[in-house]
Amino acid sequence: MRRFGYLVRMPKLAIHRLPMAHPGDVSALGELIGTGAVGVGEIRAVIGKTEGNGGLNDFTRGYFTQSLMLLLAERLGEAPAAVAARIPCVLSGGTEGALSPHYLVFSVSAGAAPGERGLALGAAFSPPCPAAEVGRAAQIASVAAAVQAAMAEAGIARAEDVALVQVKAPAPPAPDGAARTRDAKALMAYSRAAAAFGVGLALGEIPAARAAEDALLADFTLFSNRASVSSGVEVTCNEVVVFGRAEGWAEGIAAGVAPMRDLLDLAGVQAAFAAAPGEVLGVIAKGEPDRSGAIRGQRHTMLGDTDLDAQRHLRGALGAIVAAVAGDGRVFVSGGAEHQGPPGGGLVCVFARERRR
Amino acid sequence: MRRFGYLVRMPKLAIHRLPMAHPGDVSALGELIGTGAVGVGEIRAVIGKTEGNGGLNDFTRGYFTQSLMLLLAERLGEAPAAVAARIPCVLSGGTEGALSPHYLVFSVSAGAAPGERGLALGAAFSPPCPAAEVGRAAQIASVAAAVQAAMAEAGIARAEDVALVQVKAPAPPAPDGAARTRDAKALMAYSRAAAAFGVGLALGEIPAARAAEDALLADFTLFSNRASVSSGVEVTCNEVVVFGRAEGWAEGIAAGVAPMRDLLDLAGVQAAFAAAPGEVLGVIAKGEPDRSGAIRGQRHTMLGDTDLDAQRHLRGALGAIVAAVAGDGRVFVSGGAEHQGPPGGGLVCVFARERRR
Amino acid sequence: MRRFGYLVRMPKLAIHRLPMAHPGDVSALGELIGTGAVGVGEIRAVIGKTEGNGGLNDFTRGYFTQSLMLLLAERLGEAPAAVAARIPCVLSGGTEGALSPHYLVFSVSAGAAPGERGLALGAAFSPPCPAAEVGRAAQIASVAAAVQAAMAEAGIARAEDVALVQVKAPAPPAPDGAARTRDAKALMAYSRAAAAFGVGLALGEIPAARAAEDALLADFTLFSNRASVSSGVEVTCNEVVVFGRAEGWAEGIAAGVAPMRDLLDLAGVQAAFAAAPGEVLGVIAKGEPDRSGAIRGQRHTMLGDTDLDAQRHLRGALGAIVAAVAGDGRVFVSGGAEHQGPPGGGLVCVFARERRR
Amino acid sequence: MRRFGYLVRMPKLAIHRLPMAHPGDVSALGELIGTGAVGVGEIRAVIGKTEGNGGLNDFTRGYFTQSLMLLLAERLGEAPAAVAARIPCVLSGGTEGALSPHYLVFSVSAGAAPGERGLALGAAFSPPCPAAEVGRAAQIASVAAAVQAAMAEAGIARAEDVALVQVKAPAPPAPDGAARTRDAKALMAYSRAAAAFGVGLALGEIPAARAAEDALLADFTLFSNRASVSSGVEVTCNEVVVFGRAEGWAEGIAAGVAPMRDLLDLAGVQAAFAAAPGEVLGVIAKGEPDRSGAIRGQRHTMLGDTDLDAQRHLRGALGAIVAAVAGDGRVFVSGGAEHQGPPGGGLVCVFARERRR
Repeated sequence: MRRFGYLVRMPKLAIHRLPMAHPGDVSALGELIGTGAVGVGEIRAVIGKTEGNGGLNDFTRGYFTQSLMLLLAERLGEAPAAVAARIPCVLSGGTEGALSPHYLVFSVSAGAAPGERGLALGAAFSPPCPAAEVGRAAQIASVAAAVQAAMAEAGIARAEDVALVQVKAPAPPAPDGAARTRDAKALMAYSRAAAAFGVGLALGEIPAARAAEDALLADFTLFSNRASVSSGVEVTCNEVVVFGRAEGWAEGIAAGVAPMRDLLDLAGVQAAFAAAPGEVLGVIAKGEPDRSGAIRGQRHTMLGDTDLDAQRHLRGALGAIVAAVAGDGRVFVSGGAEHQGPPGGGLVCVFARERRR
Repeated sequence: MRRFGYLVRMPKLAIHRLPMAHPGDVSALGELIGTGAVGVGEIRAVIGKTEGNGGLNDFTRGYFTQSLMLLLAERLGEAPAAVAARIPCVLSGGTEGALSPHYLVFSVSAGAAPGERGLALGAAFSPPCPAAEVGRAAQIASVAAAVQAAMAEAGIARAEDVALVQVKAPAPPAPDGAARTRDAKALMAYSRAAAAFGVGLALGEIPAARAAEDALLADFTLFSNRASVSSGVEVTCNEVVVFGRAEGWAEGIAAGVAPMRDLLDLAGVQAAFAAAPGEVLGVIAKGEPDRSGAIRGQRHTMLGDTDLDAQRHLRGALGAIVAAVAGDGRVFVSGGAEHQGPPGGGLVCVFARERRR
Repeated sequence: MRRFGYLVRMPKLAIHRLPMAHPGDVSALGELIGTGAVGVGEIRAVIGKTEGNGGLNDFTRGYFTQSLMLLLAERLGEAPAAVAARIPCVLSGGTEGALSPHYLVFSVSAGAAPGERGLALGAAFSPPCPAAEVGRAAQIASVAAAVQAAMAEAGIARAEDVALVQVKAPAPPAPDGAARTRDAKALMAYSRAAAAFGVGLALGEIPAARAAEDALLADFTLFSNRASVSSGVEVTCNEVVVFGRAEGWAEGIAAGVAPMRDLLDLAGVQAAFAAAPGEVLGVIAKGEPDRSGAIRGQRHTMLGDTDLDAQRHLRGALGAIVAAVAGDGRVFVSGGAEHQGPPGGGLVCVFARERRR
Repeated sequence: MRRFGYLVRMPKLAIHRLPMAHPGDVSALGELIGTGAVGVGEIRAVIGKTEGNGGLNDFTRGYFTQSLMLLLAERLGEAPAAVAARIPCVLSGGTEGALSPHYLVFSVSAGAAPGERGLALGAAFSPPCPAAEVGRAAQIASVAAAVQAAMAEAGIARAEDVALVQVKAPAPPAPDGAARTRDAKALMAYSRAAAAFGVGLALGEIPAARAAEDALLADFTLFSNRASVSSGVEVTCNEVVVFGRAEGWAEGIAAGVAPMRDLLDLAGVQAAFAAAPGEVLGVIAKGEPDRSGAIRGQRHTMLGDTDLDAQRHLRGALGAIVAAVAGDGRVFVSGGAEHQGPPGGGLVCVFARERRR
């Protein structure tokens, strides 16, 4: 388990939501670093949406990552690879419909007053997770351990204090016979599923007795309402970022999370915003097309469209609903929500600047 | 001007919202006619969404129309072409995201009690509109006259009693030098724009002095909040269906309409539903990607996506927002909203069964 | 086994290649029937390309079939369903790139002189093939028997006289637990594979000992160079049309067939045209993206494109190569060539008017 | 006019055709530079195909360019921007069908023997070409002058010795009122057209009296058979690379070029290969969908497909034909061939290692 131990004393979390003109544009962050608004050494994680198709041949994620790591490396005087190995950069391609390309920069500086209790961030990288472990019990256990390590780093004491766990899980590009399946796309889904189980196990949402590898992509009654997972060929271990409330962290930012029972669950979306009132700093949502082919009894066409990928359908729809509630298209919406929120639904997490009391 | 004069005395409007398993499936209507739930001779208009791409090469509209006209012709003992020339069938392709393929069947039977005032339907077909008139002053005037004729047929006395005017406007497939433009797709937009001006003129929303052909697709401060227009190569005149309240029609159905000021105008959508409380019978919405490339200051990517048509982006987003408020994916959502609702926004019309008082 | 026994004495095959303006347009055939150029009662099979996407949500095939059967039914004075149950209509959606929407009408009239030996057509429909048999030994045997029945009908004496076997194989839309797989798209592939094995078995290209259901989609060293198979949810048995040389049929049409060893096998395409010199009457080609992800060692991107389906990639490429050799875009090109021609390649069949000697 | 004057004495052109695993992968070039097979200081131009969609939102070109310039800058000890300002990198997105992502690296080292006459390369960058000049007479003249400058640099004496002129022309991303059109996509086409006119003017293929801005995108009887132009928002002047035979250059590489009269002109493609016999080192082709909507009288569907961009259709078809003749998918194929080769057709240029005599 790698942890980085660079948390300051009396930590204060900040979130900057920045626009990009194209997937290679990190100039907005460059300016904030230049003016000192963000300390480059204080950046702990980046979560963003680029305007690709979100699928296997979406290279906007790689382009943005390369551009971001070049910027940070230059300002830090380090090699890009060293920065990339330390700062999680979770990207989702696809800004269909009302969505707007943007990225959230999470940084931690000194700033808490004694006795405060506020939103905390912790991160941990699991040991390398080889192809043979992906989508199996080993990955479930590895993610669960990484969640606990990240909680410990942040000082989050209890599972119920966790708002969201963002995971970037590994997906071998060319799985061999030792892998659970040789279908690269299917293995990506298994990896997301196992990571969601790991989160659910760590947070007590999925009982240990049922968090078995046979239940992955099979028993959809099992899910975590606070897991947001993406899988990618570019990572080789499980990268975990945990958000939650902890003693010793500065007040000022609230996180609200709520499940969506289906794609049309407007009340679920509104509940997440109600749980974090104030100026919105960032929104993260996961969802999936209902596997039954129908929503509330009415047939949908997302799963059988040869010209438009199901995930592009999904992001366009879910993104618009969440953006309409937010009044802002800068929403991180990602598909592939296996065991993340109720089946056919998903979850929404809102970060907001707390209103002065 | 063709009108059909087959309105019964003491008319009562009924709306049936029916599923289709594929674009050639009109079996649900066949069953309703078979059981007598719908009188085949009472059908006045059909408005539906098929699951194509909504563009030039979307043949699901033609397939559904052929299937519908075959069914009606067989039951009526008429030729399909004769039925098609009398019953407007307005289709929009594209059920992206949360949308569900379905069609609304509007029928009028005897059933009003003396003194009632309820939702009325009137229809009129303009004289043939040749290519040289499309998108020009002649088409604006022609549509305005057809709206007035349809209002007269329905007995709708005042412009403010009109809830929605649905128009199917002609678009010559291969425009020649006499046409306003030789670009077939652009001429379709001019046709929609001119029809929207015609509606706005008839309803007093656009002053006669400003309803000039030069303002089409140019002055976007001019629009109707009650016009829903599609254009198609399969029609050669302006087919107009007007919905509004009129004396002598049975009570029982309410129509609520509201503009959307932009794509994220959730309050606008909710206002339309609030204006027609009760069990929803059908929903019609129009919208368009903001031409500026941004919504509330945040860049969107609908207009520059080589792989996913802007209208498919738009329908997926707008459809999901309206469906989330409705709690139902059976929403007619159509793009190409030039001068139909505020620019970058659109409008929503809800038909609902009135609650017993 | 259904056969129709309506072959005339001294039969003469004719092929008409007809354009369509859109997938509902069968007017060119209507004209030929009207002028007597084609006897409506002599039509034995139709094979065509419509301009859809070729996938699960391609409704241009259903639209064309409905339009064709309406035309034939009207002219024959029969019900459309009765005509559809007798005349195979094999359609492939997708006219990417250089391809042109068109259809081939095969008709058989009296016209052979004594002692002639020419191109013959025979057809047979297998007994119903339930979901549980699809992609299994039962389907392989059923197709092999149907091929033999069709050969017998046509009087084709030897397997080496067969030029092409076109099969339309069943694919249950919602496979249940009795099916080989519950994945509808995968079951379509199994159905094509089993039908190709059936053809290979009947023609002696695949040894009986190896034509086992375990080898389907697994042992790609087994294939027929004369099988062209499509699968569709609209058929419930295996519909087989065989082309080959037989005694008693009129001379005048030649058929040439050749395998393609990979997508770039220009020599293979040219060999098929060389084997049927003369005015081209129709071309049928099958192919598939190389499963290895490379062609002659160079990476291709057909299999991982989220925005453009692999079969659309394939048809655009293969269609252009065959059309360039033909000098004509009216080529029937279809993907899904499992066990039809060499793996990663496919096959081409050319029908041509024989040159006068 | 910027020229760089770094041509060595007794120059020898080399062409390396390199694979990329993804659009950010320049490792193959890195290895060649590492082993000394390519001198990093000798690289004069890069022309490549990445696997994007080739349209406005294709960011694979930017990703590759960033990766390439980082590599060269690191090895040269220069800033990436300085390298990019000197070495033309012309990319076309879209490897539909049989095409394979790859790039050609053109380098010039010392190596000619006295008296040799071989394939030469010259480059020139025009002065900045502001938006108001794009698609107008000024750009035509500017490109013509740059072609002459590049010919002079290379020592190519006569227009008939030129094999190909590759141009990267500017396209302002947000054209204002001073521009020929405010439609960004249309202005890109005007820019390509003006550059093609400039080439045709410099090579004597288009008479000066007819090379007027009014004829751009209007008089398609005017074209150059040796112009290959792309336009992009990332360049602000006309970047020109000329290939042709010149005294003093080493022998060893031949270039053959031939027009295609339409998309199916297989003989045209074969003529280009016949003109440069030997091991193929690189292939460049341009083409366009026939504006009439038909090829040799048969309707094509490239121009009206809402789901698949016309240029993706075109590249898939043209690429496959050229690749089939080459026997290799590594072909640079680009759409947007206004005035480049015959209308509805295009041109092909083949670079090959000359056979020892």
